[in-house]
Amino acid sequence: MSSEPIRLVDKLATFSEHWKPRVVGAFNGHDLLVVKVKGEFVWHSHPDTDDFFMVLKGKLFITLRDGEVTLGPGEIFVVPTGVEHRPRADEEAELLLIERRGTPNTGDVKTAAPRREI
Amino acid sequence: MSSEPIRLVDKLATFSEHWKPRVVGAFNGHDLLVVKVKGEFVWHSHPDTDDFFMVLKGKLFITLRDGEVTLGPGEIFVVPTGVEHRPRADEEAELLLIERRGTPNTGDVKTAAPRREI
Repeated sequence: MSSEPIRLVDKLATFSEHWKPRVVGAFNGHDLLVVKVKGEFVWHSHPDTDDFFMVLKGKLFITLRDGEVTLGPGEIFVVPTGVEHRPRADEEAELLLIERRGTPNTGDVKTAAPRREI
Repeated sequence: MSSEPIRLVDKLATFSEHWKPRVVGAFNGHDLLVVKVKGEFVWHSHPDTDDFFMVLKGKLFITLRDGEVTLGPGEIFVVPTGVEHRPRADEEAELLLIERRGTPNTGDVKTAAPRREI
């Protein structure tokens, strides 16, 4: 087994596109992903997985049908399975995501960004 | 549903004991936990869950039978299911842990710290 830690800063330094998550590790059938975000994503939900967001840098807004959550560095929000949400970042933000392996980021395989490992 | 983020710094400010994880949230049948650690924990393994460690503050050493991993802030290591490990921190460190709900922290319910929610 690898005895190297996953250094999120190093992983994030390898790309610059927004809303294109990169798989950086695995945990109990889930993908660990990092992503850079800026602007507004689409409304979506995931029918079979909770959606874990942790802000590493910057600020993230997650709009829900009944409110909005604001997240800064070191803050986590878990969107429950099936709950519609729309992430937004006014300035570039960096996130750690955890999703069941193979989850399409838009909730729909037809529009999802391809998963890439780094 | 709650629209409040999980602020890890605030959660960590509510207690001071070492090696007593606190449950701060839930994700796909897993507990999200924060813990303060200092000194050396026991050798253990988990027969039915990977063990997710992310350092929030300080430095963590995870000794494995075939090596040692050193983790600083923003770094993650996943100990695979069944792999023996012994965490250690020479100075106090603060961690985010993710484990399948109900996992005993020592790998054994007889010696495990009780799980407390905050």
